[in-house]
Amino acid sequence: MSVTAAQGFTAAGIAAGIKENGNPDLALVVNNGPRLAAAGVFTSNRVKAAPVLWSEQVLKGGKVSAVVLNSGGANACTGPKGFQDTHATAERVADTLGLNAAEVAVASTGLIGLLLPMDKLLPGVGTAAGQLSPHGGEKAAIAIKTTDSVHKTAVVTKGGEDGKGGWTVGGMAKGAGMLAPGLATMLVVLTTDADVESDVLDKALRAATRTTFDRVDSDGCMSTNDTVLLLASGASQVTPEHAEFAEAVRAVCDDLGQQLIRDAEGASKDIKVEVVNAASEDDAVEVGRSIARNNLLKCAIHGEDPNWGRVLSAIGTTRAAFEPDRLNVAINGVWVCKNGGVGEDREKVDMRYREVHIVADLAAGSETATIWTNDLTADYVHENSAYSS
Amino acid sequence: MSVTAAQGFTAAGIAAGIKENGNPDLALVVNNGPRLAAAGVFTSNRVKAAPVLWSEQVLKGGKVSAVVLNSGGANACTGPKGFQDTHATAERVADTLGLNAAEVAVASTGLIGLLLPMDKLLPGVGTAAGQLSPHGGEKAAIAIKTTDSVHKTAVVTKGGEDGKGGWTVGGMAKGAGMLAPGLATMLVVLTTDADVESDVLDKALRAATRTTFDRVDSDGCMSTNDTVLLLASGASQVTPEHAEFAEAVRAVCDDLGQQLIRDAEGASKDIKVEVVNAASEDDAVEVGRSIARNNLLKCAIHGEDPNWGRVLSAIGTTRAAFEPDRLNVAINGVWVCKNGGVGEDREKVDMRYREVHIVADLAAGSETATIWTNDLTADYVHENSAYSS
Repeated sequence: MSVTAAQGFTAAGIAAGIKENGNPDLALVVNNGPRLAAAGVFTSNRVKAAPVLWSEQVLKGGKVSAVVLNSGGANACTGPKGFQDTHATAERVADTLGLNAAEVAVASTGLIGLLLPMDKLLPGVGTAAGQLSPHGGEKAAIAIKTTDSVHKTAVVTKGGEDGKGGWTVGGMAKGAGMLAPGLATMLVVLTTDADVESDVLDKALRAATRTTFDRVDSDGCMSTNDTVLLLASGASQVTPEHAEFAEAVRAVCDDLGQQLIRDAEGASKDIKVEVVNAASEDDAVEVGRSIARNNLLKCAIHGEDPNWGRVLSAIGTTRAAFEPDRLNVAINGVWVCKNGGVGEDREKVDMRYREVHIVADLAAGSETATIWTNDLTADYVHENSAYSS
Repeated sequence: MSVTAAQGFTAAGIAAGIKENGNPDLALVVNNGPRLAAAGVFTSNRVKAAPVLWSEQVLKGGKVSAVVLNSGGANACTGPKGFQDTHATAERVADTLGLNAAEVAVASTGLIGLLLPMDKLLPGVGTAAGQLSPHGGEKAAIAIKTTDSVHKTAVVTKGGEDGKGGWTVGGMAKGAGMLAPGLATMLVVLTTDADVESDVLDKALRAATRTTFDRVDSDGCMSTNDTVLLLASGASQVTPEHAEFAEAVRAVCDDLGQQLIRDAEGASKDIKVEVVNAASEDDAVEVGRSIARNNLLKCAIHGEDPNWGRVLSAIGTTRAAFEPDRLNVAINGVWVCKNGGVGEDREKVDMRYREVHIVADLAAGSETATIWTNDLTADYVHENSAYSS
C-alpha cells in the first residue's frame, strides 16, 4: 500500500516519457490533510541537485501538501536552468491541484548532468493529477525506480484493534546503488495518518535515518539527490506517544533500508557488519564503515573466503579505541580471529548463503553499531561501467 | 641493477620454499659501508605486522647493516610467536654475516594470519648469504614479488661525468594491490652510495614518500606490512647537496610508484587525478583521494564513460573549500564540466588509451596535488575473491 496505506493520502504513478524506454517515471503523492505537517532529511553531499536545494527550502516551513518525484533524470549539476525546472515543476503541481508551490516538494533521480525534458514532464503532472487515488501507492513506488529490480514499500500499523484509534506509517523507496552514509541515491517518501506536529516528525525522522539508511553502505558512494520525506495527515485523529511513533518510523525505515541492500546493484551477498564492545557509538560506526568499505574484503566475501586479515586491516585504519592484540572477529558465528591472531579453524565458516554476518569485537567498551553492505562483484562492475548514472 | 646499482651493497634472491609453488621468496640486501646510515617509513595502519614492529625499532637507531625480506607470508596478526619468528630471522642473518641483529631490518609480504615456515626460512638465510653479490639486485627484486606480474626497479645516477664524484640512488619495490595512502602492501628498499647521515636520509625519504607512494591509491585499502627503507653506504665518498639528494630519492620513489600503479591487480586504466586551484594542499589531497576512491567513477572509467557527475559527487563529500557552481572538470583534456554544470561535449573525450587524466578545478586557490589510481574491473574482483591475501 506504500504511501497510501495511511489515511488522508492519494498518489499516482505514470509514464510521462522522461525515460526513453517508456517505463513509468513520474509519481505524485498528495496529503489531503487535515494536517499538512512534514519533515525531511537530505543528502549531506555538498554538491546538491536542484530538487534537493528546492525541497530543503520547502521543508523549512514544516508543511508539505504534495510531493512530485521523477525518475529518468537527477536534475543535478544542471545550473540555474535546472533550478528553474524544479521550480516550474512545483508551480505546475500547485496550479493543477490548487496548492501553494512553496509547499510542494520535488525529488528527482537518474542521470547527473542532463536537463529534464520539461516538455514531457510538465504535461505528465496533469496526467498524474488526474489519476490520483487512495490506492495509488504501488504505482507511485513503481514510477520512482531506476536500476531497481523491484519496487520497495513498507507499512506499520499500530492500535486500532478495537476498531478505532489506529494509525499507520507507510512508505516507498527507490535505490539500488550509491547507497552510503548521508543517505544514498535514494528517494523515500513516508506518510502517516498520525496527528503529529512537524517538530515531532523531524525528531523521529532524524533518529530513524541515523540508525537505518545512514548505516546502509552498499558502495561507499554518496549521491547528490538523496531525499527522505515524512508527511503527516492527521487523518486518524490519533496522537501517539512520541516513543511509539518514533519506533514505528524507525521500523519502516529499517524495513526499506533492508530492501535497498537486498536489491543493491550486482550484489550476491548482503553483509551485516556488527561492531561490538566499542568505547563509543562513534567508534563503532567508524569501524563498521571502514570494514564495510574495504574493497578487498568485499571481494573476499564474494569469493566466500572468510578473510579476517582484511577485517583487521580495515579496523587498523580507524581512530577508534582498541588494542590490536585484543581484537576478535567472528564470521558467520566462527571466531576466526582471537586476540588479534588466528582463532578457530576458518574451514568451519559456512558462507554458502546470501547473508554474511561479521562481528568485530573491539574489546574496548560496551557500545555497538551495525552497518549493512554488499559484496563487490563483477556484476557490480559491469552494471556501473555500462550505465551512465 | 636495483638495490645493487649503488656501490657498497650486495644482494641475493633465492627460493627458500616459503612459497609452495617454488618461486623465489627470500631476499637479502647487505650494506658493506663504510657508512651504515638508514631511514624508514612504515604503514600507518594500527594493525602492524611483526616485521614492521621489529624494523621500526631497528630504524630508531638510524643504522641498518642488512635487510632480509620474504614473500609468501606477511607474518601479520600472528601474535607473540610471529614476533619471535621475526626476531629469530634477524638473529640468523646477524649470526650468518657477523652483524648485530639490532641493525638487521626485516620485511614480509603475503598472506595475513599465517605463521612463517621457519624450518624453511632460516636455512634460506644461509643460502641467500652464500649468494650475496654486487650484481644480486635483480634477483632480490624478483624474490619479493607476490601477485606482481613484473619485478620493479629504478635507478638515478648523478654527477660522475668527469669520471669521479658520481653517486647513485637505486631501489626495488613490490606491490600490486592494497596500494593506499599510508603506503601499500608495498615493500621498497632504496640504496645509495652517497655519503649522507641518517637524519638527512630520513628527511629526504619522508618528503619523497609523502608525494609519491602516499599518493598512489589503487584500491583504498591500507596494508599491515608497508615498509620503505633507504640505506646509505657512503661508498661514493660524495656528499651531495641536500636538495639534489632529496630530488634523486623522490625521482626513484616516483618511478617505482608509477610501476606499482601500472601493475595494479586487474586494472585496465591508470588514472591520474590532478586537483588544481585548491585553497590548500591538504584540500587538494583530500579531494584527489575522494575522487580516486569512488567505486562508481572507477567503474565508469573502466567502461570508458567520461562520467563527470561522479567526479562532482565525490568532490561534494569532502570538507575542502569550494563552491559547487564554480567547479570545473576535464577528462583527457576536454572540460566536460564547467561551473558545476554541463561543459564541452562529452563525446569529444577519447578514452581508448590506458592512461586517463582527470583534472578537478576547485576554483578556490592555487594549490595542487596529484593522486594516481586505477579503474575498478571484473578482473580485480576475480583476483581478490580467489586469492586469499
